[in-house]
Amino acid sequence: MSGNRIGDEADITSAASSRRHVDNLPYVHKVGVPPKQSLFKEFKFTFRETFFHDDPLRPFKDQSKSRKLMLGIQAIFPILDWGRRYKLRMFKGDLIAGLTIASLCIPQDIGYAKLANLDPQFGLYSSFVPPLIYAIMGSSRDIAIGPVAVVSLLLGSMLQNEIDPKHKLEYQRLAFTATFFAGITQLALGFFRLGFLIDFLSHAAIVGFMAGAAITISLQQLKGLLGVKKFTKKTDIVSVMRSVWTNVHHGWNWETIVIGVTFLAFLLLAKYIGKKNKKLFWIPAIAPLISVIVSTFFVFITHAEKKGVQIVNHIERGINPSSLHQIHFTGSYLGTGFRIGAVAGMIALTEAVAIGRTFAAMKDYHLDGNKEMVALGTMNVIGSMTSCYVATGSFSRSAVNYMAGCNTAVSNIVMSCVVLLTLEVITPLFKYTPNAILASIIISAVVGLFDYEAMILIWKIDKFDFVACMGAFFGVVFASVEIGLLIAVAISFAKILLQVTRPRTAVLGKIPRTTVYRNIQQYPEATKVPGILIVRVDSAIYFSNSNYIRERILRLLADEEELKEKNQPRIQYLIVEMSPVTDIDTSGIHALEDLHKSLQKRDIHLVLANPGQAVLDKLHASDFTNTIEDDKIFLTVGDAVMTLAPKMEP
Amino acid sequence: MSGNRIGDEADITSAASSRRHVDNLPYVHKVGVPPKQSLFKEFKFTFRETFFHDDPLRPFKDQSKSRKLMLGIQAIFPILDWGRRYKLRMFKGDLIAGLTIASLCIPQDIGYAKLANLDPQFGLYSSFVPPLIYAIMGSSRDIAIGPVAVVSLLLGSMLQNEIDPKHKLEYQRLAFTATFFAGITQLALGFFRLGFLIDFLSHAAIVGFMAGAAITISLQQLKGLLGVKKFTKKTDIVSVMRSVWTNVHHGWNWETIVIGVTFLAFLLLAKYIGKKNKKLFWIPAIAPLISVIVSTFFVFITHAEKKGVQIVNHIERGINPSSLHQIHFTGSYLGTGFRIGAVAGMIALTEAVAIGRTFAAMKDYHLDGNKEMVALGTMNVIGSMTSCYVATGSFSRSAVNYMAGCNTAVSNIVMSCVVLLTLEVITPLFKYTPNAILASIIISAVVGLFDYEAMILIWKIDKFDFVACMGAFFGVVFASVEIGLLIAVAISFAKILLQVTRPRTAVLGKIPRTTVYRNIQQYPEATKVPGILIVRVDSAIYFSNSNYIRERILRLLADEEELKEKNQPRIQYLIVEMSPVTDIDTSGIHALEDLHKSLQKRDIHLVLANPGQAVLDKLHASDFTNTIEDDKIFLTVGDAVMTLAPKMEP
Repeated sequence: MSGNRIGDEADITSAASSRRHVDNLPYVHKVGVPPKQSLFKEFKFTFRETFFHDDPLRPFKDQSKSRKLMLGIQAIFPILDWGRRYKLRMFKGDLIAGLTIASLCIPQDIGYAKLANLDPQFGLYSSFVPPLIYAIMGSSRDIAIGPVAVVSLLLGSMLQNEIDPKHKLEYQRLAFTATFFAGITQLALGFFRLGFLIDFLSHAAIVGFMAGAAITISLQQLKGLLGVKKFTKKTDIVSVMRSVWTNVHHGWNWETIVIGVTFLAFLLLAKYIGKKNKKLFWIPAIAPLISVIVSTFFVFITHAEKKGVQIVNHIERGINPSSLHQIHFTGSYLGTGFRIGAVAGMIALTEAVAIGRTFAAMKDYHLDGNKEMVALGTMNVIGSMTSCYVATGSFSRSAVNYMAGCNTAVSNIVMSCVVLLTLEVITPLFKYTPNAILASIIISAVVGLFDYEAMILIWKIDKFDFVACMGAFFGVVFASVEIGLLIAVAISFAKILLQVTRPRTAVLGKIPRTTVYRNIQQYPEATKVPGILIVRVDSAIYFSNSNYIRERILRLLADEEELKEKNQPRIQYLIVEMSPVTDIDTSGIHALEDLHKSLQKRDIHLVLANPGQAVLDKLHASDFTNTIEDDKIFLTVGDAVMTLAPKMEP
Repeated sequence: MSGNRIGDEADITSAASSRRHVDNLPYVHKVGVPPKQSLFKEFKFTFRETFFHDDPLRPFKDQSKSRKLMLGIQAIFPILDWGRRYKLRMFKGDLIAGLTIASLCIPQDIGYAKLANLDPQFGLYSSFVPPLIYAIMGSSRDIAIGPVAVVSLLLGSMLQNEIDPKHKLEYQRLAFTATFFAGITQLALGFFRLGFLIDFLSHAAIVGFMAGAAITISLQQLKGLLGVKKFTKKTDIVSVMRSVWTNVHHGWNWETIVIGVTFLAFLLLAKYIGKKNKKLFWIPAIAPLISVIVSTFFVFITHAEKKGVQIVNHIERGINPSSLHQIHFTGSYLGTGFRIGAVAGMIALTEAVAIGRTFAAMKDYHLDGNKEMVALGTMNVIGSMTSCYVATGSFSRSAVNYMAGCNTAVSNIVMSCVVLLTLEVITPLFKYTPNAILASIIISAVVGLFDYEAMILIWKIDKFDFVACMGAFFGVVFASVEIGLLIAVAISFAKILLQVTRPRTAVLGKIPRTTVYRNIQQYPEATKVPGILIVRVDSAIYFSNSNYIRERILRLLADEEELKEKNQPRIQYLIVEMSPVTDIDTSGIHALEDLHKSLQKRDIHLVLANPGQAVLDKLHASDFTNTIEDDKIFLTVGDAVMTLAPKMEP
């Protein structure tokens, strides 16, 4: 160990280095005391950073009135902006991408509507109107809009807690009400620029939640895949497995199982091929439609439906009917619809914003989260009036959209047109589509949500994040979607609170051959300065941690004094490195005052190094700078040691 | 302005300084990569810092078994420790202090019991048993135990929402049940070392809450002071003032008013004298008892009670009867009692711990918050079985105790003995004590809780804290005690969340004649380095702020590039100063990766300066260090600039 050698050097290092510095750099810069900001300015700054940190009004600056109006309209309807620059050669990519996602979305829509306990056509409706609205108002170029698995499951399980899906009309009405309020929630969050609220669902929690939802959704598909008739309404794994096993002798239908498992294998194979070779992305994209066509034809010619294979039977033909009159604007279901809608809307937002951000970062264009929310909200509000349920951006379809070479939201318009044709012309052809195929399609669509690689990475990076991830996962799998969500949010908050309650502290030492002082645990070669204890506090000092910090510093001091009771000088200065202390409040000031008092009793001087602007302002305001004297505040720890070391008693 | 001169220097500064440093300090220290800690060690560390940061088991280390047992018993009953070292000369101070606080507490107890809607003797009971238990188990030497105004008010207002105080027996049973669970809550918090939870009530919130409680309590005293017979049950200022004014013509009793106002003036004068001259602290301390004696004698000889002056009438004689059988251990009142008890217990703890800490800091002895909670909890559990309601440390009486020269908890034992004598012998003498006197005593006791000086200081130091303070204050005054509490806690949490959602960022510049880089807003003389943007992030990078930080940095970059489109070189390096970034999670890593991608598109290198241990571990675990290459991480911003400046394109 070289520790000893360094230790021996230490005694002379500080004196020597300070002498050397006195020669070379005799300059000790004063700590900056910025002019006091006015209350209004301070408030304005905080307000702006909280709600307008991205400066959305910047393009409007210094423009004429008519130009401002034009820019305002373009801000609400970005299509007016990019539409004018749209070139025909862009359309080729958009057309191919649109057709690809259409072929993927049609069978998925029918399946997802079932997840939400709605008739199949509502899934198709939701892939017709919302993408059109989004194309006009949204600014992501890659997102594919429509119903998605997780939101469908969430909506379905929350709605059926209120109304039995057998009462179709009442159930639909509540579904539209919830969709309306989901849109209103999204709109409001965007309009009031509260979009940052969705950031409180951490990445880890989302990974766990999505994986749990994938399991839950797949388990629900056992009903269709095994041809079970009596199936539980609950979504937790225990109820579902019990439901499956009690039906094993007289409930399973082997023809259904053969069809389902065969096509599931085909779909998973297609997915595997697409994953191995990115150029073949179109194989998994069209595989579902092919499965539907083949299996429908097969059932039609063999009349398998007479052997107990359940089929879709009937999809309402024609485009979205109006559903404005079905929304509950009064009555007891108003509150219920609002509650369900708010939750579903937030989850839908989380998904859409995450997708939007991912692709915006990949293509390096800017996306205004709050504007996106306004677009998504408007889309769902209008959707709720045209028989759609909550639509949002789909992870899997957006990825296909991107890989198929989409350039703008025109691919969504193309998809929407295909869905329109489907609704008008070919819905009767779905009559003989077996439910087992829909189940296979849904399973193959959601396996991708189980992102075990991300889970492993989370485990590697941050154990606490992993706990949040697993909490959300097991919550969804063993309890319900809502409970999983609740656990995820609770653990995320607990993490924030733990961080602000128990910040880290570090003892600093001098890095050899520099004037830099660093954590001696991170830099074992750093040496302590005899007679001086240097402590860094790694957090803003707030009411939630001020007592802890004070006690922690005193304990570090006690530890230090216990260690060096030999021939070393007693501790005469306690330097608190304040660089990471970004703010302090009244409780924090009190803690510093108490610390100062305790130190005075032991004849130790309290010294502060590098307090930031906000902290310095408050130290002045509270007169603490006078209490410890201005000459006890330094720009750097190095300056402090350099100035104080010569003054020490031997 | 000297800004210009510095600006001219700036162009050459960086090159020159780096050259100078290459000569004098050619040494660039490597960033420390500490050995990876095992998961168990990491977990153990976090667990210990969260629950055992004060290392309570330290004295037990390396001791024999019998010694450990002895120390364990002493830890639970500190009296065994300090009792053995108790000297007779200490007793003089304790005796005087005990007699003084007894004379203060007896009239207060009777009044506070009324605040809790209980008969007067219960106040006295609560000043007999709890102080004895605390003296055995507590470790504060200065606290004075007994009923206090705020907890009495809180308990009274919460209890009367459940049961009308006219149903005396049922009301008392619920009061004892609540007291029992208040004790259990305190015990549990201490035992499970969750004491830090009470830190979530910030200093500012407590100041506001106490001031609001002082107003509310004073308003309640208008009943006694004006002799109003029909008085509202509500505590908000609007209801109380309406109640007072509707009674103005036939409800006020002028004899009562004369007695009340005269003695209130006397008490406030005594308080003023005590405040002006600290040596005369005993004047306000004995003034209440004198008032009681004088006014009781006056009523007795003039028979004022026949003229409508309300008197105490009857105080049960004798010491505390058992109340164990009265506590609801089953039934519907169990839950109610628990809820009320938990709230009252937490508030009582907040007060006691704040007092304990204050005096411990003044006399510089160590106080274990969690052990205190166990003592206070046990005291209230035993209290609930001996007809006491929630007792805790009283601000005003503890201050008197301290000033009267108490040395140990023996002063509480003395007080307890005096209360015992009172209960056994002189309670009948209180029969003619007018209620107006009790009201005056309570008002004069709580005015001190309205700490306007602290409010002004809070306003000066931190505007957000002031909002929390006023929120709690107006919540208590205009709504109710519980709502005030709720507002205080909510605002405190909102502050934490705002801090972690919108951390500050700063652009750094070089302080002239040093190699130190600091915020250019705090140090206007600091100069930016051409071609390099240096940004400091002032917070841990977590899911709640990772997107904001990424967007903020990109915006700072855009601002910078907009500013210097003249003849200066384009930005080629973005240095992120990570000193204040104490931790990072998976969302944070993702944000850094996205930032890196965006910068790559613009041909800008991302450079990190001084990442801490936790951050570096995670950067390695996620392979981000390889993404940006290890040579882009530096110990200090100075090192980074020194190394990179020569490599820049012209």
